[in-house]
Amino acid sequence: MTMTNMNQQNGVTAILLIHCADRKGIIAKVTSFLNEHNGNIIYLEQHVDKQQNVFFMRVEWQLTGFSIPKEKISTIFGEGIAAEYNMHWRLYFSDQKPRMAVFVSKMSHCLYDILSRYQAGEWQVEIPLVISNHEDLAPVAERFGIPFYLFRKNDENKTETEELELKLLQENNIDFVVLARYMQILSSGFIKAYPDRIINIHHSFLPAFPGAKPYHSAYERGVKIMGATSHYVTEQLDAGPIIAQDVTRISHTDSVNNLMRRGQDLEKIVLSRAVYAHINRKILIYNNRTIVFS
Amino acid sequence: MTMTNMNQQNGVTAILLIHCADRKGIIAKVTSFLNEHNGNIIYLEQHVDKQQNVFFMRVEWQLTGFSIPKEKISTIFGEGIAAEYNMHWRLYFSDQKPRMAVFVSKMSHCLYDILSRYQAGEWQVEIPLVISNHEDLAPVAERFGIPFYLFRKNDENKTETEELELKLLQENNIDFVVLARYMQILSSGFIKAYPDRIINIHHSFLPAFPGAKPYHSAYERGVKIMGATSHYVTEQLDAGPIIAQDVTRISHTDSVNNLMRRGQDLEKIVLSRAVYAHINRKILIYNNRTIVFS
Amino acid sequence: MTMTNMNQQNGVTAILLIHCADRKGIIAKVTSFLNEHNGNIIYLEQHVDKQQNVFFMRVEWQLTGFSIPKEKISTIFGEGIAAEYNMHWRLYFSDQKPRMAVFVSKMSHCLYDILSRYQAGEWQVEIPLVISNHEDLAPVAERFGIPFYLFRKNDENKTETEELELKLLQENNIDFVVLARYMQILSSGFIKAYPDRIINIHHSFLPAFPGAKPYHSAYERGVKIMGATSHYVTEQLDAGPIIAQDVTRISHTDSVNNLMRRGQDLEKIVLSRAVYAHINRKILIYNNRTIVFS
Amino acid sequence: MTMTNMNQQNGVTAILLIHCADRKGIIAKVTSFLNEHNGNIIYLEQHVDKQQNVFFMRVEWQLTGFSIPKEKISTIFGEGIAAEYNMHWRLYFSDQKPRMAVFVSKMSHCLYDILSRYQAGEWQVEIPLVISNHEDLAPVAERFGIPFYLFRKNDENKTETEELELKLLQENNIDFVVLARYMQILSSGFIKAYPDRIINIHHSFLPAFPGAKPYHSAYERGVKIMGATSHYVTEQLDAGPIIAQDVTRISHTDSVNNLMRRGQDLEKIVLSRAVYAHINRKILIYNNRTIVFS
Repeated sequence: MTMTNMNQQNGVTAILLIHCADRKGIIAKVTSFLNEHNGNIIYLEQHVDKQQNVFFMRVEWQLTGFSIPKEKISTIFGEGIAAEYNMHWRLYFSDQKPRMAVFVSKMSHCLYDILSRYQAGEWQVEIPLVISNHEDLAPVAERFGIPFYLFRKNDENKTETEELELKLLQENNIDFVVLARYMQILSSGFIKAYPDRIINIHHSFLPAFPGAKPYHSAYERGVKIMGATSHYVTEQLDAGPIIAQDVTRISHTDSVNNLMRRGQDLEKIVLSRAVYAHINRKILIYNNRTIVFS
Repeated sequence: MTMTNMNQQNGVTAILLIHCADRKGIIAKVTSFLNEHNGNIIYLEQHVDKQQNVFFMRVEWQLTGFSIPKEKISTIFGEGIAAEYNMHWRLYFSDQKPRMAVFVSKMSHCLYDILSRYQAGEWQVEIPLVISNHEDLAPVAERFGIPFYLFRKNDENKTETEELELKLLQENNIDFVVLARYMQILSSGFIKAYPDRIINIHHSFLPAFPGAKPYHSAYERGVKIMGATSHYVTEQLDAGPIIAQDVTRISHTDSVNNLMRRGQDLEKIVLSRAVYAHINRKILIYNNRTIVFS
Repeated sequence: MTMTNMNQQNGVTAILLIHCADRKGIIAKVTSFLNEHNGNIIYLEQHVDKQQNVFFMRVEWQLTGFSIPKEKISTIFGEGIAAEYNMHWRLYFSDQKPRMAVFVSKMSHCLYDILSRYQAGEWQVEIPLVISNHEDLAPVAERFGIPFYLFRKNDENKTETEELELKLLQENNIDFVVLARYMQILSSGFIKAYPDRIINIHHSFLPAFPGAKPYHSAYERGVKIMGATSHYVTEQLDAGPIIAQDVTRISHTDSVNNLMRRGQDLEKIVLSRAVYAHINRKILIYNNRTIVFS
Repeated sequence: MTMTNMNQQNGVTAILLIHCADRKGIIAKVTSFLNEHNGNIIYLEQHVDKQQNVFFMRVEWQLTGFSIPKEKISTIFGEGIAAEYNMHWRLYFSDQKPRMAVFVSKMSHCLYDILSRYQAGEWQVEIPLVISNHEDLAPVAERFGIPFYLFRKNDENKTETEELELKLLQENNIDFVVLARYMQILSSGFIKAYPDRIINIHHSFLPAFPGAKPYHSAYERGVKIMGATSHYVTEQLDAGPIIAQDVTRISHTDSVNNLMRRGQDLEKIVLSRAVYAHINRKILIYNNRTIVFS
């Protein structure tokens, strides 16, 4: 059964992501609210961070039969329970496909992985465009019929080029950005335009080996396991909230070239896992850490 | 902070394990019940098996401040919500340490792992005795001051010997049994005396290589990864509900001896993980599968 | 540095794969032979299976400066050392790209993974064609400019259709076949035409869950880890020599659909690892087991 | 079969560890030398670091039948091939058990793991003593009949106390030291007395989270995988050559306490793997990196 089928099976669902100071009775309150309005919960996961005393929740229910009209849920929940508990919250509907832009440079493995999942219908997402600072991957985007935009950047034109990029993203109603081995550091201004909505893949097991040439550093240090990390981009380089990580065992027999080759498999899988979690509204961010529900 | 400290910090807690047919409003009902009686929930996890339409839940709350007296919770919950939803449920209290018997044969690694955790206070458990069909490990039990009982078994005396073992377990109020590389097959009668309360470690990645000599079979088959599996014992050999599994990468360079040596590390860690989950009432069993809450 | 660059750096190399009964002095003999003819060894790995008393070796050396002409190596080695030690051996040259056919059915993830690596130049291989029993993936092959051949098979036309497939493979000088989630069982006749040269991906951790619907079986059995296995195809279903395996941790929260979705990542990565090892002549087969050098 | 049995089976073996600048013909030279003196090689592994142009080799052969007397091998090899190729090399014999000292503080899990392996005969080693800066683990050592020495250290008496420790190590002919969660930084003088012969376990995936409180740091950073690292101690804290690493997946549900509890399993297994490799002379060190043969 594909994701599309599953969606059809459950009909349209609403997804509520919540966090707030932990207090007695929150779960009872939220679930009773859904219950009273005849909402059939198909997924509920909650977490309490006891060190910070914060409550986190993701609840998903079917709209069919729910007695509050879709367009009024936000107001009723927001002015009621959310206000009472001083919640940070977001409401999504499963029939709204988020729109994603992919930024690339010269390496194709992550882009191929993303576009082949997209083409196979694995993700409930729209990808209206690919942006690059090099022309190398134009043929790849073309192969999948995705518009490709080239923005050559250098130190002198960075600010104005990023403005053009942001304009293009806004024209295309882009919800979030995926840096699929994009080898440029985004300015603070760009990052602020998409807070918690730019996903990067870094080719090391962060916080080990941030910055440039992590495979060379891993080789030099002689680690016995290497990794890849997908995280939200913040202004501090390679220090944003981690979404997904994976590792693989290496040894003295692996040259730097071999680490690069083997690392590409980690990179593309880890990035795609992070994108999947983001698309499916599985992620909450608090204090530079993520809660990724299952 | 040790587990003991954590226990003291939260005071005595009650743990409720529930499963029943899935219906709207169960979570709201249970959490409202605890809330109304001023129960501070410190842990809640639930799962819905949509294929079988079964609801599972584990909820843990502090007894301090809870308005129902400890000795009445069972009756009030049982005759109220549990009856209404036709629940299968169990109630535990964190100040009741389960009592565990360890069965061993000749290999010491799992026994050492268990007893060293016990001695270090890692587990909230009592281990009143070790039982074996060989005398080899008597000195190990002695080292930790645990009584060691030798029951030599053979095909002729199996039934009567098992009866003596069961009598000893009952005299010691044993709650559950851990087979720590016990190389004897228990009879159906013995298993029925401890349903879902005998934990075994099998030295393969089940269902691959059940039965005798799994390391030899793994070598013969040329697998590239080997594993260990901890499961509840049922009458069908090596086919009970799986609690925990782990694996490690192997290669053509590993001889059978090497698989055995390396496998021992998997065995002891996987068995101890399963025992930890059992002691902490994290496990629900349904249809020969486990739900192991985090 | 890409694989192509590495190849250029070392120039053309010769690769010798050997196995024979273990005897004293084989390594000295082979390495002295290469040394005497001024062969610069860039890679040597050997293994002795002590249980079966078999010696295995892979040695790779630069042809530049080697005093035996490329076309005579085979004769001189074969009539000399190989005859003396009664070796099974194969000689390859790095400038001969093996020719690979890909068989697919309806699922695209493995095909995309293979073709994107091929297009990116990651593999020293030629892929002249894709064969399928369904038309679904024709557009994928087309996207990469690879000829796509449709052979609809059923129980009645299987023999004659396989003959047509074999004819096509021979016309295209195909060296080995990759079954990239090809959902048809090949006949004994077909397998005999490509002994030890058909690579399959099975979507379970073999020998667990051979045959049809392994994800359903894994779900039913309640395993806590699932896997994928790439192996050479032999006449016994899912029982051929294992080349590569990988696993991922699962839990009660994973539905069958989720196992399928997550399993696809394992499948494509494991299959591609096996293909890479095959292309690079890293694999020896003995007694239904593989030696895969690093 | 135990390690002891294996040893008896092969009789006494000699082990040669070599590294030198890479040149043509080294393998042929060494293997021919052993061959000419009728040495039956039971294990050979070599590695060439092409970036640094260094050759590494471990070769093990049976002394039974070897035509050079045991006590003359060192001279003959050293003045012959080793001198010719300007090798760094060491010669060991399997009947010499290395003598190991264990340093501990308050946590018992690594000590128990080490002593239970020792008692079970898993390692070919002697452990004449345990040293600690706290009295807490004296009963553990006592349980295994190992002498326990308490050296209370503080900033004022550090130098003289270390001198007493070194004296004790020398009196006991200690070959190498294992820091089994020893929570004191050794002085440069102590480290120099046992160069490349002090093995530490650090409770993080180095180079991530060096220094104090790595579990707290891992929690703060929100990593999705945590690890443990065993390495040789050098004067730079937590920066010595890495011998072994392992990792485990964690999530937002893991409190710092949980990381500590789960991390202990990683620590003890990783430390014991490193000790095993060291005891079996599997490790070569070059440029702050290890070659760990299989």
